[in-house]
Amino acid sequence: MQRIDFQTAPLHYRHWRLNCNGAVAELIMDVDPQGGLVEGYELKLNSYDLGVDIELNDAVQRLRFEHPEIHCVVLRSGKDNVFCAGANIRMLGKSTHAHKVNFCKFTNETRMAIEDASENSGQAYVCAVNGTAAGGGYELALTAAHIMLIDDRRSTVSLPETPLLAVLPGTGGLTRLTDKRRVRRDRADVFCTMEEGVRGKRAVEWRLVDEVVAPSVWERMIETRAQALAARSDRPSRAEGIKLHPLERQFAAGRVDYSHVHVTLDRAARRATLTVQAPKTALPTGIAGIYQAGDQFWPLLLARELDDAILHLRANEPDLGLIVLRSEGDSDAVLAADGLLEAHKADWLVREIRHYLKRTLKRLDLTSRSLVALIEPGSCFAGTLAELTFAADRSVMFSGQRSGDNRPAAALHLSPLNFGAYPMSNGLTRLQTRFLGEPDSIHCAAQHVGAGLEAEVAEGLGLITFAYDDTDWDDEVRMMLEERASFSPDALTGMEANLRFAGPETMETRIFGRLTAWQNWIFQRPNAVGETGALKRYGSGVQPEYNPQRV
Amino acid sequence: MQRIDFQTAPLHYRHWRLNCNGAVAELIMDVDPQGGLVEGYELKLNSYDLGVDIELNDAVQRLRFEHPEIHCVVLRSGKDNVFCAGANIRMLGKSTHAHKVNFCKFTNETRMAIEDASENSGQAYVCAVNGTAAGGGYELALTAAHIMLIDDRRSTVSLPETPLLAVLPGTGGLTRLTDKRRVRRDRADVFCTMEEGVRGKRAVEWRLVDEVVAPSVWERMIETRAQALAARSDRPSRAEGIKLHPLERQFAAGRVDYSHVHVTLDRAARRATLTVQAPKTALPTGIAGIYQAGDQFWPLLLARELDDAILHLRANEPDLGLIVLRSEGDSDAVLAADGLLEAHKADWLVREIRHYLKRTLKRLDLTSRSLVALIEPGSCFAGTLAELTFAADRSVMFSGQRSGDNRPAAALHLSPLNFGAYPMSNGLTRLQTRFLGEPDSIHCAAQHVGAGLEAEVAEGLGLITFAYDDTDWDDEVRMMLEERASFSPDALTGMEANLRFAGPETMETRIFGRLTAWQNWIFQRPNAVGETGALKRYGSGVQPEYNPQRV
Repeated sequence: MQRIDFQTAPLHYRHWRLNCNGAVAELIMDVDPQGGLVEGYELKLNSYDLGVDIELNDAVQRLRFEHPEIHCVVLRSGKDNVFCAGANIRMLGKSTHAHKVNFCKFTNETRMAIEDASENSGQAYVCAVNGTAAGGGYELALTAAHIMLIDDRRSTVSLPETPLLAVLPGTGGLTRLTDKRRVRRDRADVFCTMEEGVRGKRAVEWRLVDEVVAPSVWERMIETRAQALAARSDRPSRAEGIKLHPLERQFAAGRVDYSHVHVTLDRAARRATLTVQAPKTALPTGIAGIYQAGDQFWPLLLARELDDAILHLRANEPDLGLIVLRSEGDSDAVLAADGLLEAHKADWLVREIRHYLKRTLKRLDLTSRSLVALIEPGSCFAGTLAELTFAADRSVMFSGQRSGDNRPAAALHLSPLNFGAYPMSNGLTRLQTRFLGEPDSIHCAAQHVGAGLEAEVAEGLGLITFAYDDTDWDDEVRMMLEERASFSPDALTGMEANLRFAGPETMETRIFGRLTAWQNWIFQRPNAVGETGALKRYGSGVQPEYNPQRV
Repeated sequence: MQRIDFQTAPLHYRHWRLNCNGAVAELIMDVDPQGGLVEGYELKLNSYDLGVDIELNDAVQRLRFEHPEIHCVVLRSGKDNVFCAGANIRMLGKSTHAHKVNFCKFTNETRMAIEDASENSGQAYVCAVNGTAAGGGYELALTAAHIMLIDDRRSTVSLPETPLLAVLPGTGGLTRLTDKRRVRRDRADVFCTMEEGVRGKRAVEWRLVDEVVAPSVWERMIETRAQALAARSDRPSRAEGIKLHPLERQFAAGRVDYSHVHVTLDRAARRATLTVQAPKTALPTGIAGIYQAGDQFWPLLLARELDDAILHLRANEPDLGLIVLRSEGDSDAVLAADGLLEAHKADWLVREIRHYLKRTLKRLDLTSRSLVALIEPGSCFAGTLAELTFAADRSVMFSGQRSGDNRPAAALHLSPLNFGAYPMSNGLTRLQTRFLGEPDSIHCAAQHVGAGLEAEVAEGLGLITFAYDDTDWDDEVRMMLEERASFSPDALTGMEANLRFAGPETMETRIFGRLTAWQNWIFQRPNAVGETGALKRYGSGVQPEYNPQRV
């Protein structure tokens, strides 16, 4: 199979246009029906596949980094009478179970990135629904801070997945109805079983949209809403963005190399080893230097490379069920980078970088692979990089020196960024989640910020799972990795999805936990994906046949 | 297939013994290997099937109603060296997907009933793990308020489902580890992949059990803990319990009749109609009368009959995907019963009845069938019975009188019990959940307690979904029911599971939402249930073969 590439740039977009005009950008969906990621389906009526979403993800990202002057984004359609028809059904019908699940996860993450921009980046989204918004199309609209629906007597919003396709609105639709829009549950029930959707006054009364607008004043009202939201932004007016250049990557047999992220692929052992590296050259000394470094500033470079590596492993290496997390380099340099991120956190660009690191770490949390961190001599799990060890399902640390290796014993370092900069989907930091049962341990850990914590100390503080010395390390680690690779991949996916997100639930955890798990279940059921199921029969003119049994 | 009956009584128990001694009862699990609910497996090592759990559910229920003097229950095993080996694997291997899911749901509800007794009924459970507690065995122990593990160097607690069986600990185990016991997530990860489990000091350090106890002082310590918990109970010391007599039921082709609950089965239309009836005879006038009425007191009788009817439909009528909820009788009598439940709520028996109604209504919320309430002339959806309409996915109300029927227009009534007595799994009342997006509506509704709310008023207050008058009722209702029955049962199950529980998440909603959904997904995967999967190969001596792909 062809490698799915998550990197793109506006020059290569086939499905989106970006018009920047003062403080407001228009992000226009205009899907090229012939531009599907693989053959076999046409992307009619602004329906989408993963390729369309890869471009959207790129656009959302560039708006944040390259366009500080954009304070509001208007999401709209470039086609007449249709906003977006949702995920392409033929694509879904042809896809493997794994592709469907991965596709939904990525689209969900992109929707979250839009909401993150509205909430945390002073770049609020308005959705101008200028035609039918069905299924995933309405789910896309639901990510906006403000939804406008044209009142032309034919434009509707709808979630027809259940009646038409025997699946759920799988990109957060059900959860956003209940949690974000707080639609009354019986109305949500009615709405989700109506093929034809809802329009006009009822759409407002049921809180499905924020307003309906007459066609005669449509453009004017969009402008009014966008300017009002833009006026509330705390982004700078005259700053210059930084350019996100193409990543330097090399794909070779058995490895993928970025500048500071290196992935080795061990197919026989069913695992990938992902090594992140500390800054290798001097960091800037102040905010001007950060701007000058631009996308080469180590924390941003790291986030981009790590993000791409995770997406690559998810989409292109499904058989590698285990990701071993390693690090190499100078912990002091990592802590210095954290120092810059903390000292300049009020700056818009540094804020973006911190949020991007946050989202990349969440992407790791949500990756359905076992994660094991190995903390060894020569490693630099410090501050931001220490989050990788807390994101791991377990972390093991080398105690003392390795025989024949004169590097000092491994040390874990905490920085202020471990205590709030990178909340998980549950709204808590990884340390808070870790220490739900022993909240005092957070305070103990906080007293060790900046110190090099060797294995026994780290173990005493509860920061690692196990420590092994030179005598045991090789055997223990080998056995652990072999054992993990021997378990059922599905059971591990379910287990990890339940154990990683202790503590409070948020809309995000509900989308990735409850909603996604039900959707995955339905994506296995013959009523949806069997030969006579709805996804297979859709568009054939033949009605699906259902086994009536309720489970 | 033989009808599964959820009614039993101690005289018929094959797997449990109940010894009451002063304020402490021993509930002893001693499973008869030959006592499986169906043929084809032996219940060795205190492993269980649905039949074992039906008895447990009965015992937990009788302890609450028949034994007010019991202030603490010691859950233990009647076998040497084994506490409980969990759900029987051969039974799981032979079961249909639907049976596995239904089985897990019922066992989960029984585990919740144990916790409800500890938390709300002054009847705390101590679990004395006097041998191996594996999988569902440890999950059973996890329901106790206090877990003791014998320190004999061989007794362990374990959740070996993932390594051994390629499934999850599906009866709340993962969620109770993170949410109830607050086990650190990396330790939970290690624990859930260890076939051999954990014993001794580490079991305490990891918070898997509350204490380990040397064999020499085992019995003495159990007594000490039980007495200490009993001393904290607010149950009366000298009250007499009320006897739960066998329910009067009649099963006929196309219907099931209890005294106040009637179920008609329309197999062609794939729906059941469940009608509840108001009290038909005079209610007691005070607490003495309630005791005298015993299990014939209408609210208790209603709870028992409704509970059994729901369980019957779930287990024995899987093709009826739609339950229509109706009521008949005198609303004033229902409100009078609510008045008694409110006036005497401090009494232990009334408290039990209220909690039982709460649990029965939760059982309805958790039933994976579409629920539609029809509020018609002659109905009595008042107070406690109005909860049925709020539990429904949608409710439609007849506006005005029916032509040729001189009964007055239908009216909905609220009572104080709609505002706190019956929280859902999410911890909120059904009205709070309904009005999450419009909290003022709760206060409006509260001002109408006791009043007869006809269709237009009920609609204005947001208490019903739609109102139809005589002209439209028949067509609208018929179309709605037919349409619902035409949708994919699986998509409806997933949709309803997501829409019914808006608002906060609790351990309960996480068990029934996130954990259960993942388990159901895994229960469909070839790695678990395929011919070479772990559930099929277990005990054969042949290793399972897994597709390594991560989804």
